[in-house]
Amino acid sequence: MKIYDRQGTPNAARVRIVVAAKGLEEQVDYVKVDLVAAEQKQDWFLKLNPIGKTPVLVCEDGLVLSESPAITEYLDNLDGDPILTGRTAREKGLICMMQRRVEIMLLDPVDDYFHYGTKGLGEALRPWRMPDWPAKKDWGERRGRLAVENLPYFDGVLRERPFLAGEAFSLADISLFAGYAFAKGAGLPIAAELTALHDWWARVGEVPAVKNRSGQGF
Amino acid sequence: MKIYDRQGTPNAARVRIVVAAKGLEEQVDYVKVDLVAAEQKQDWFLKLNPIGKTPVLVCEDGLVLSESPAITEYLDNLDGDPILTGRTAREKGLICMMQRRVEIMLLDPVDDYFHYGTKGLGEALRPWRMPDWPAKKDWGERRGRLAVENLPYFDGVLRERPFLAGEAFSLADISLFAGYAFAKGAGLPIAAELTALHDWWARVGEVPAVKNRSGQGF
Repeated sequence: MKIYDRQGTPNAARVRIVVAAKGLEEQVDYVKVDLVAAEQKQDWFLKLNPIGKTPVLVCEDGLVLSESPAITEYLDNLDGDPILTGRTAREKGLICMMQRRVEIMLLDPVDDYFHYGTKGLGEALRPWRMPDWPAKKDWGERRGRLAVENLPYFDGVLRERPFLAGEAFSLADISLFAGYAFAKGAGLPIAAELTALHDWWARVGEVPAVKNRSGQGF
Repeated sequence: MKIYDRQGTPNAARVRIVVAAKGLEEQVDYVKVDLVAAEQKQDWFLKLNPIGKTPVLVCEDGLVLSESPAITEYLDNLDGDPILTGRTAREKGLICMMQRRVEIMLLDPVDDYFHYGTKGLGEALRPWRMPDWPAKKDWGERRGRLAVENLPYFDGVLRERPFLAGEAFSLADISLFAGYAFAKGAGLPIAAELTALHDWWARVGEVPAVKNRSGQGF
């Protein structure tokens, strides 16, 4: 299998942790996409993913999948034991919901902040990702504040249970890991009093699929 | 089970079709949420869903699920035969991807158009859903144009296969059904030359779970 991505981005981190958690590292070749040069908006890439975003998984049998949760669904179910997306109806529902809450409440607003409230990925990507730059800088900053304001929700959930969707590490934690690191990397504050969130961060750092990714920069 | 929603909205339509497709109609009581009065932003509702959106599923055992795809994951897997979200890894990956493409390329931009480019749901909801109204009317209209420009992508996929994620009706079609109806209802044009999309619309209208919802207004 090939994965087109850019190491160091939140979505690359998500899928790379999934690959590690499923023991699939030997079966994946990574192809670097130059996001700063807006390579993901070029025709050859848009044929793989019309939304023009990484990562994209390309399998030997011709299957092409974009969207981190879709790639995760596929890789997690290949061996018939979906440890990351849930084994029961209840687990599947809760993991799907929590991972979407992370996207809507954290990953998406941090991404907007990164692209509008900071220098983002620079000029080449602007026509696609920041068409209203710099007019919408205020909006980008507001999105950053929203992400910060949403962090106590996740802290609250993690006071009730060790991982975001229950007793076990799941895709929801992988997304929150990426969101937490992205927020920090973009310069947003993560308040010291969110102790359950900080404890969770330490706990997730000990999960082998996360821990053994040292040197990957995210 | 109880489902908190507002009949006639795209997300209520999505989950109601899922309920019908899984033969669960007798087991669900619907509780009406007054979206025009912004009831979904009141404290009692935010405790069910911090994002403040319908629908929300509340089960007798205390399980609470928001997000249409998460509710679908749960209901579809209850009987161990996930006909809507996929039985194999490949089906699950493709359905998840296509349903997200519908959300990102159609449902989300039509929703932005509806709230900013038209009168939307009115004044009570503005502080939450349209904080920049009416300054961002242009942006809303641009989002509407984007939705229209994305329709040929779905038409192209439907030239290759009868349903959006393959040979069988799935959650991806349910989302596209809601997106198509929402676009039409919001006054956006669906070009006559998108014949594969129009043929698909007729085909989906014959799926029992969709057809037998007559009189539901969406």
